[in-house]
Amino acid sequence: MRVAVLNRPGEVEIIERPSPEPGPGEVRVRVAAVGVCGSDTHYFDHGRIGSFVVEAPLVLGHEASGVIDAVGAGVDAARVGQRVSIEPGVPCRSCEQCLAGRYNLCARMRFHATPPIDGSLAELVVVHEAFAHPVPDTVSDEAAALLEPLSVGIWSARKAAVGVGSHVLVTGAGTIGLVAVQVALAAGAVEITVVDVNDDRLAVAAELGATRTVNPTVDDLSAAFGEGAPEALIECTGHPGVTHQAVRALAPAGRAVLVGMGGDEVTLPLSTIQERELVVTGTFRYANTWPTAIGLAAAGRVHLDRLVSSRHTLDQTAEALVAGRADPRAIKAVILPQR
Amino acid sequence: MRVAVLNRPGEVEIIERPSPEPGPGEVRVRVAAVGVCGSDTHYFDHGRIGSFVVEAPLVLGHEASGVIDAVGAGVDAARVGQRVSIEPGVPCRSCEQCLAGRYNLCARMRFHATPPIDGSLAELVVVHEAFAHPVPDTVSDEAAALLEPLSVGIWSARKAAVGVGSHVLVTGAGTIGLVAVQVALAAGAVEITVVDVNDDRLAVAAELGATRTVNPTVDDLSAAFGEGAPEALIECTGHPGVTHQAVRALAPAGRAVLVGMGGDEVTLPLSTIQERELVVTGTFRYANTWPTAIGLAAAGRVHLDRLVSSRHTLDQTAEALVAGRADPRAIKAVILPQR
Amino acid sequence: MRVAVLNRPGEVEIIERPSPEPGPGEVRVRVAAVGVCGSDTHYFDHGRIGSFVVEAPLVLGHEASGVIDAVGAGVDAARVGQRVSIEPGVPCRSCEQCLAGRYNLCARMRFHATPPIDGSLAELVVVHEAFAHPVPDTVSDEAAALLEPLSVGIWSARKAAVGVGSHVLVTGAGTIGLVAVQVALAAGAVEITVVDVNDDRLAVAAELGATRTVNPTVDDLSAAFGEGAPEALIECTGHPGVTHQAVRALAPAGRAVLVGMGGDEVTLPLSTIQERELVVTGTFRYANTWPTAIGLAAAGRVHLDRLVSSRHTLDQTAEALVAGRADPRAIKAVILPQR
Amino acid sequence: MRVAVLNRPGEVEIIERPSPEPGPGEVRVRVAAVGVCGSDTHYFDHGRIGSFVVEAPLVLGHEASGVIDAVGAGVDAARVGQRVSIEPGVPCRSCEQCLAGRYNLCARMRFHATPPIDGSLAELVVVHEAFAHPVPDTVSDEAAALLEPLSVGIWSARKAAVGVGSHVLVTGAGTIGLVAVQVALAAGAVEITVVDVNDDRLAVAAELGATRTVNPTVDDLSAAFGEGAPEALIECTGHPGVTHQAVRALAPAGRAVLVGMGGDEVTLPLSTIQERELVVTGTFRYANTWPTAIGLAAAGRVHLDRLVSSRHTLDQTAEALVAGRADPRAIKAVILPQR
Repeated sequence: MRVAVLNRPGEVEIIERPSPEPGPGEVRVRVAAVGVCGSDTHYFDHGRIGSFVVEAPLVLGHEASGVIDAVGAGVDAARVGQRVSIEPGVPCRSCEQCLAGRYNLCARMRFHATPPIDGSLAELVVVHEAFAHPVPDTVSDEAAALLEPLSVGIWSARKAAVGVGSHVLVTGAGTIGLVAVQVALAAGAVEITVVDVNDDRLAVAAELGATRTVNPTVDDLSAAFGEGAPEALIECTGHPGVTHQAVRALAPAGRAVLVGMGGDEVTLPLSTIQERELVVTGTFRYANTWPTAIGLAAAGRVHLDRLVSSRHTLDQTAEALVAGRADPRAIKAVILPQR
Repeated sequence: MRVAVLNRPGEVEIIERPSPEPGPGEVRVRVAAVGVCGSDTHYFDHGRIGSFVVEAPLVLGHEASGVIDAVGAGVDAARVGQRVSIEPGVPCRSCEQCLAGRYNLCARMRFHATPPIDGSLAELVVVHEAFAHPVPDTVSDEAAALLEPLSVGIWSARKAAVGVGSHVLVTGAGTIGLVAVQVALAAGAVEITVVDVNDDRLAVAAELGATRTVNPTVDDLSAAFGEGAPEALIECTGHPGVTHQAVRALAPAGRAVLVGMGGDEVTLPLSTIQERELVVTGTFRYANTWPTAIGLAAAGRVHLDRLVSSRHTLDQTAEALVAGRADPRAIKAVILPQR
Repeated sequence: MRVAVLNRPGEVEIIERPSPEPGPGEVRVRVAAVGVCGSDTHYFDHGRIGSFVVEAPLVLGHEASGVIDAVGAGVDAARVGQRVSIEPGVPCRSCEQCLAGRYNLCARMRFHATPPIDGSLAELVVVHEAFAHPVPDTVSDEAAALLEPLSVGIWSARKAAVGVGSHVLVTGAGTIGLVAVQVALAAGAVEITVVDVNDDRLAVAAELGATRTVNPTVDDLSAAFGEGAPEALIECTGHPGVTHQAVRALAPAGRAVLVGMGGDEVTLPLSTIQERELVVTGTFRYANTWPTAIGLAAAGRVHLDRLVSSRHTLDQTAEALVAGRADPRAIKAVILPQR
Repeated sequence: MRVAVLNRPGEVEIIERPSPEPGPGEVRVRVAAVGVCGSDTHYFDHGRIGSFVVEAPLVLGHEASGVIDAVGAGVDAARVGQRVSIEPGVPCRSCEQCLAGRYNLCARMRFHATPPIDGSLAELVVVHEAFAHPVPDTVSDEAAALLEPLSVGIWSARKAAVGVGSHVLVTGAGTIGLVAVQVALAAGAVEITVVDVNDDRLAVAAELGATRTVNPTVDDLSAAFGEGAPEALIECTGHPGVTHQAVRALAPAGRAVLVGMGGDEVTLPLSTIQERELVVTGTFRYANTWPTAIGLAAAGRVHLDRLVSSRHTLDQTAEALVAGRADPRAIKAVILPQR
């Protein structure tokens, strides 16, 4: 099979590798679509994210969909031919965190495209059968791949307790911010304010459900709210100043969910957190989100295809990895390995 | 002012009473619209509901909206002229339940149209200022009155933990069932099954968001679900057999919320409740629902006007109280006291 | 190895079987102590529990402790010699329930002494390594075996949200009731009322933490509470009348957890459940309780050894299974397979 | 009546004031004991706390108990003579926060000894009847006064979800830290680590339930935990460095509750919060804690009298306010206004 490997920063090579065989309890998926994530681009640019360092050729990609074309021992053979969305992290399923349902916090998680675990930018990929989730035909291959970022949005919204009648603040209108908006809308939020410095992205946010958009280079966020301060924040920029200001904007008993990665430390408004009893938390991937994600996509409650801004072949992987750099309208590049 | 009083079962009289004056912390509302509830009809027919007995002339009506036309001491005079939806129960605000935020369980609750507390079927009604909730102009007078049944739907959905991706079963497609459907849809439910013996109502349910309707005189409820058993039940019939069957239909860890009143006792499937660890609870009115209700109505996420099936003057109160009896298409009769 | 098998109702036989070998990810435990549970006695008497029928010789016992004497592939060899308490049900760890942390609801659960899965009344037993929980030396072999019923108590208390300051009602003072009392006390409950018809058991309940005991053949439960109605019920009798009366005794917003098995159906006070918004649920085994159970036992916060009322060799299994029948003071018979 | 007023920083004067009369719904309490809080001392030293400035003579004191000696209109006259603990903040009971049960976040809260609201360092004080909580005779006057700091401990433990089997880290062993330890123990925590630089206080912490004490000038906190990292932090120092280090010590899915006041801002380990999905929140006073506090004190589950390190007359108020300054063994000074 053909596979795209990152040899060193800036160097992606398309090579041939032996087709992988599914082991017991595994399935092999013929990959249809792979979304490019900021972390892929970061590995491409820097060769590392924090303590995760690319020390050997690494297959990138962790937002993938496809069709099962082989199954390992113990897996129902009828699954061959099934269209699936791949949940890219397989936990140990035996530790205290896994057994408690918090498998995203498993210390032995094997997550695609996180060194030294290969990802899905390949013609074929093998995964545990429980993490290859069947999708109905109403969900396109590309949307099925984007159930991964949608899961980030679902997870954030759960942590922020977004629900019917919520007033939500989303800072950052990249892919994660835009799925967060859609999940908030689907969850019944009635006010959804989105902050970004990119007016193109704000326009997409408005199209997808934001009831108010704020460009902080033009408007003052702290003046944006009167009595109706948001009670939930989904922070997707990782920018310290934005985070600080957004937390301060929350109503009493509000929840701030810090999704955007932004360095090791953050300075937060302690007295505000205390006086309003705000709850601040962070997210690390997601757990148990795929059934919800599939339900939302299949019901047409989210519009993932709208996020795709460019399509690429496997040979164009390097170009896809930097597609967002030149074009302010770019949201999500998708690679189609079978083309 | 003119007011409709229930003198005895079957006898409603329109009489003149002195206009009430708002006391400290109260407002007086010129009533625009009052929805007729099944409990109003029950008092009209039987003169009692359980231990609540009509022993003196009683003003019915507890789903009301209007315009503030006078305020008592300590209330901002600027509220005169404000359009409001009336939350019809004012709790003591000092007992353990009130202080804990469960004011619907207050033993000293004063609730409209519950003997001996008068309701709102009058030209004017006085209420605590905090329970006269401002509504924007995008919410009609009739919709503002129907925020009361909407609150029942919101409260039920909260108890049932309906959220993004939920599979919900609603038994009974009367007013409460139909608001429950709308709240479930607004909350992100992706499968909403509605059960009723009245095909007209099932049609309205489908129009308002039900993804599947079941008439149990024709179809078998227990056969309606394959793998995707509902994980939330909002039971609005009070019928013992329906309740039993619906609880049995729930998925593991499902929640059954019993809203419909159906006698003192109910027989439930104990071994199913244990083996699936189902949670069963009941609702008693609601608490802290108006902000959410206003948000949903103002955002167009629910369609309360669609529920109004007939309109009546105050003089036609008796007719309005039985409007649902003759017409299978009747859903909600509304009385407009100012006409 | 020697093993006790139930051939048919009333007939237990001690036979030799080949020693089992631990497979990958498994450990083999030399069994030190096995508690006799009511379900063991029920299989002994009737050969079935509900749809679970003993159709082939079955090893009973699911409350067990011992010492690891061999490990399978992939298991740290240093675990040999480790004292462990055995969690007797191993779930599939891949289904939706398992991944969500509700592994007790796994449809593919393999649970000891539930036909056709053998239990632990043997000299050696093999179990998944994650379900053989290390215990410190401050926890005796017998207490380590009784972490299983303690887990039922912990699980019930979690479902009932028993915490600091709780008023708890425990109906039934058998083993489960007595562990529920101890967990409630450990959790900070300040009023713990225990109901049973057996005065000997009530005396033990008082010794272990009950602040009030009620024998309903003498005293009236409904008269037992003044203003301080319990807000949590842990029902351990399975008796319909007791359940009904106990649920009615709950304070507003109270939680009733039905642990005792009592037939397929139960009649509950619907109007009370609604007016007080009571929450009723059932338990099915437990999940994620062992760490808590070990912590409580090691800290001396529960007294499991106090529950042991008789000790038996493997040869005396039949006698142990009926030890509770003759003696009203009997609580828990324990079998020590190595003697 | 005699009352102690703070005229300006450093100047407390005992003056005569007319006895206050209870209004409707109020009771008048003959004050038996008043605990001195760090905030009292702060006002005494600096004349302000943040934006709260002492601009007119202010009565300090907000930890008080006594006996009802008069009642206002609408209050049961039988309450005269009742021993009570005073909850020192009376909220508006009508705003969104109050109705939701979060009355501590009420913007119109009137809180004792917070300018311009007088406190309880007087012979008599008037308070809303619902906030004068009856205590049984098993709770001493001084313990009844200290239900206020106990409430802070209860509230923190609730926010931190401390329960059966918890591993808890308490930083700071002043009054709040020491009640937090006691509540954690009462709640079933099995490991309670306390950090302070004062060995006397650590000794008291150990006496009251701490299972491990750490003096960070001697031992390394980050080395204190092996596998058993705490999953709940109750931070009572307000010290930025301690806070940062303590948050980093938490296990995955841990909760950090920031109780200690420490300036407007705090720097937290963002990447740790994200990777472990830690939840960080602050507390502002408490809500609905008195029933729990009374239950714990009456049941002997906490030892409040142990915290009293000095007793003073009203005339000795100034001395009491600085009692903690000289003596490292000082914990809580109590003023007894009737002596």
